[in-house]
Amino acid sequence: MSYTPATQDQLLAIRVNAGIDELAKSERFAAAEPDMVEAIVEGVGQFAAGEFAPLNRVGDLEGAKLQNGVVRLPDGFAQAYAHYVEQGWNAIASPADFGGQGLPFTLACNVLENLGTANMAFNLLPMLSVGAIEALDHHGTPEQRAAYLPKLVSGEWSGTMNLTEPQAGSDVGALRTTATPITEGEHAGKYLIKGQKIYITWGDHELAENIIHLVLARTPEAPEGSRGISLFLVPKYHVKPDGTLGARNDLRCVSLEHKLGINASPTCVMSYGDNDECIGELVGAEHRGLAAMFTMMNNARINVGNQGVQIAERATQQATAYARERIQSARAGAQDKSPVAILEHPDVRRMLLRMKSLTEGIRALLYYTAGQTDRGVLGNEDAKMRADVLVPLIKAWGTDTGIEVASLGIQIHGGMGFVEETGAAQHWRDSRIAPIYEGTNGIQAADLVTRKLGLVGGDAVLSLCSEIVRDASGERELAALAKDCADTAEWMRSEASMDDRLAGSVPFCTMFAVAVAGWQLLEQLRSVESGEYPALAQRKRVTVRFFLDRIVPEARGLKTSATAGADLLYALDAEALAS
Amino acid sequence: MSYTPATQDQLLAIRVNAGIDELAKSERFAAAEPDMVEAIVEGVGQFAAGEFAPLNRVGDLEGAKLQNGVVRLPDGFAQAYAHYVEQGWNAIASPADFGGQGLPFTLACNVLENLGTANMAFNLLPMLSVGAIEALDHHGTPEQRAAYLPKLVSGEWSGTMNLTEPQAGSDVGALRTTATPITEGEHAGKYLIKGQKIYITWGDHELAENIIHLVLARTPEAPEGSRGISLFLVPKYHVKPDGTLGARNDLRCVSLEHKLGINASPTCVMSYGDNDECIGELVGAEHRGLAAMFTMMNNARINVGNQGVQIAERATQQATAYARERIQSARAGAQDKSPVAILEHPDVRRMLLRMKSLTEGIRALLYYTAGQTDRGVLGNEDAKMRADVLVPLIKAWGTDTGIEVASLGIQIHGGMGFVEETGAAQHWRDSRIAPIYEGTNGIQAADLVTRKLGLVGGDAVLSLCSEIVRDASGERELAALAKDCADTAEWMRSEASMDDRLAGSVPFCTMFAVAVAGWQLLEQLRSVESGEYPALAQRKRVTVRFFLDRIVPEARGLKTSATAGADLLYALDAEALAS
Repeated sequence: MSYTPATQDQLLAIRVNAGIDELAKSERFAAAEPDMVEAIVEGVGQFAAGEFAPLNRVGDLEGAKLQNGVVRLPDGFAQAYAHYVEQGWNAIASPADFGGQGLPFTLACNVLENLGTANMAFNLLPMLSVGAIEALDHHGTPEQRAAYLPKLVSGEWSGTMNLTEPQAGSDVGALRTTATPITEGEHAGKYLIKGQKIYITWGDHELAENIIHLVLARTPEAPEGSRGISLFLVPKYHVKPDGTLGARNDLRCVSLEHKLGINASPTCVMSYGDNDECIGELVGAEHRGLAAMFTMMNNARINVGNQGVQIAERATQQATAYARERIQSARAGAQDKSPVAILEHPDVRRMLLRMKSLTEGIRALLYYTAGQTDRGVLGNEDAKMRADVLVPLIKAWGTDTGIEVASLGIQIHGGMGFVEETGAAQHWRDSRIAPIYEGTNGIQAADLVTRKLGLVGGDAVLSLCSEIVRDASGERELAALAKDCADTAEWMRSEASMDDRLAGSVPFCTMFAVAVAGWQLLEQLRSVESGEYPALAQRKRVTVRFFLDRIVPEARGLKTSATAGADLLYALDAEALAS
Repeated sequence: MSYTPATQDQLLAIRVNAGIDELAKSERFAAAEPDMVEAIVEGVGQFAAGEFAPLNRVGDLEGAKLQNGVVRLPDGFAQAYAHYVEQGWNAIASPADFGGQGLPFTLACNVLENLGTANMAFNLLPMLSVGAIEALDHHGTPEQRAAYLPKLVSGEWSGTMNLTEPQAGSDVGALRTTATPITEGEHAGKYLIKGQKIYITWGDHELAENIIHLVLARTPEAPEGSRGISLFLVPKYHVKPDGTLGARNDLRCVSLEHKLGINASPTCVMSYGDNDECIGELVGAEHRGLAAMFTMMNNARINVGNQGVQIAERATQQATAYARERIQSARAGAQDKSPVAILEHPDVRRMLLRMKSLTEGIRALLYYTAGQTDRGVLGNEDAKMRADVLVPLIKAWGTDTGIEVASLGIQIHGGMGFVEETGAAQHWRDSRIAPIYEGTNGIQAADLVTRKLGLVGGDAVLSLCSEIVRDASGERELAALAKDCADTAEWMRSEASMDDRLAGSVPFCTMFAVAVAGWQLLEQLRSVESGEYPALAQRKRVTVRFFLDRIVPEARGLKTSATAGADLLYALDAEALAS
């Protein structure tokens, strides 16, 4: 089924939560003035609905296929990607020096939101390329940047991230792929790459002319663990000095994973150096590969949190349309015994409003996080730290909530929801990857209660809680939840052991995210009440109230779990736990 | 992957929550003495693990297929079903007059639990047959019972339920299938059935010699709506007076649904009377078809709630095994920097214990409900009413929780969880149907806040809350949750409008179910503390505490939603809601 871009709600979030007008006052983001913002949001929405959305279902049904060593996508993908490149959507936030528009990350988020709502699996192609652009822009030599960035920025070439190996998932430091210096010949100064990587998103395909793989590997005699990892640029086709493509490099897609969802995104097992001729070049300093990856990790995690908004928006639209069409049963207790559209039944309304307010809540948190990230780029250290705190919240809660909303979408469809033909099930299947990749949600929560809670001795977290309490004023439940978060944070940093913190990390992350999202929705409500977006006021009064009056109190139920400590978790040994 | 039957926990729940020893004191259930109970629980567990479990994966991968009008299952299904029939597992609780063993429903629940944990899709075949047996036993004529029950009880024939039509889902009364009396000829006194039914579970297959379809249809000039519906018995093959099979009846499987899960269970579109020769016979009184269906609805709903236990148990076992094997990262903050099994990390422990205590909680509620049902059969009216209250709780919360546990199982697998090869994803896909069929969970919650809350003017619900408060004694959170449930029930029956009740129905149903499950787990804990099951004591001290100290407080967060009323839900009209 088709979808309508959530343009108005996006513009509201970009204005209120990201604070785009303030960003546009800076020299760097001066181009982001209102007309430009509207043109982008409306333009990419239309493009996504028109070109990416129609491929969502066929992408799920046919999926990516490996045929005679070539990864094939269903008909239509190549053309849609070509149009995407032609229209310049890949370049929104990329460096202007290499053909990008240098606009705020906030607007890049909007491009991804629209493309991913239309087609989550397809959108992973540009999403991964953005990461490669950021890594090269920050860590590449001038020559590397000149050689690779222009075509990556335009989208003519795509990029991938190669971290995971079978024994090295969350523990990247355990990887074994090797990089051996080449001391003579044509490739002197470069490296021979050898090893196998798994879960490489869009690791191979024919949509772009070349694919630039960023590969983590170990140089000879590198220290063990994460301190011995370096980052390498490994092109699918060698690039000649004149910029044209040369011979194929010694790398290949060995197989595609058979997955639960996002079937149009080829998840590749990649083999490098089967013939000992895979050439790569070092990016950044030797042994500093993980640090280079960290540069782009925040944005990558925000982009995955964005997928929570995407799948939630799409599932909500589909469920709403179904609930308006499907006629079943009279209203309970009504005089009129004629059957009504199921959207008229109280519990279906509850589910739809829950879907809508959760979707808007994730979106508010997403753009708030993006706006803080942009301020960090402008040199605002407080905003940078604030963004650091927000990243695990949007990634973990955003993606968990995406699943919840997609599941409600199935439920509203009744039996039709379990039948694949409607597409409601696809959203739910697609949504399930987001809590796993780019650092599992457990790792996000661990990051929150360790590194992020440690920032400025806890103040980075506590000052956020204080701001929410301050702004909540009449909203008692929201103020109480923010207070619960502050209490939990205080307990974690003062009394709790490392195990205690980690034991409560996931419930804490959830309740904290709900508090911030509720606060940012309240900002939206106050903004529309002050008359800025009259068309949205009627709806926001309902969806924001639903969030503040129902979602927020539920999150308060998590405090006990968040502060329960780890002792009980270790009361059974592994044997007893498995019995 | 294989699974180990949860025999000890099942026996505990059967003893403590269902109270099997007390049931065995009745004449009717005298056979259910301890040796027999253990023999059944252990025997069916072994059978299920040995014969049904190995077919779970192939059933998902290959699924049921319609080939030239014949529904085919993967190799092995026919043989396993034949062994099931040979060993007499179908007959556990069926009437002794027709070859059954007349044992308590509690033990039939255990047979289904074991078979369904091994293979949820396959288990739907016996599960549906049980419904047909109950309907015929209660409403069939002596001739019908003699002709059909013996082979249904043995399992040589299977049974189906035919309610749904495209326009008649939750609103069964909207169905249009017709039944026209035959006044002369061989079939005089019977009916010509004509119409199409959808979502017919195991509607056609070759595993049983005959299939007895129970079909809801309208006789000519029947009143509109549910009061004009009658129940008909429509065999796949006609049964001759001597009991042998005659010609094929005029009915067929038109197509199979392409579903999200339970792929080995053929979900059929059934067509009756394409050639105007489909013969059926009336079961029970004309226009009383829905009442006849209601007879078996309680047990059918409990059996679906049972699927929550099944999928949760299976997912938990698989995740635990994976978490013991998978080595990744050192413990955070530990001196020893060697990587450990992920089960040693606090958040993985939290997830595993959450899975285990939720699974045990659904099981405790399941067997408590089954035991009350059995007491109702013995004539205990209070227990019958108690069971009526419990049915929506086990069906709705049991199945919602099954999904949550299966989702945690995926999360523990990390990237491997999203890859279909591990099977973790199958459990999650399979689990998603249970909140939908046999009355959506929204309908269960509506049943709770209308009919069930109305029983004895609210006392049926309130007396249960009071018992929990009484027994909770030192357990403050449990007592508080039960008090919250009582307050909510009081508000619903005194102040709330019908819309208000329905608006709060799902959160109320969830919090109430958690209270009852927590109470029944507390009963288990007290039982093992008193020394009855020393082997289980160590584990129960952990899993029950986890439930009482973490799951119960979370449920308290739902009270605000449960009592928030319906006004906000109707503040937007359909147009605004869809915008």
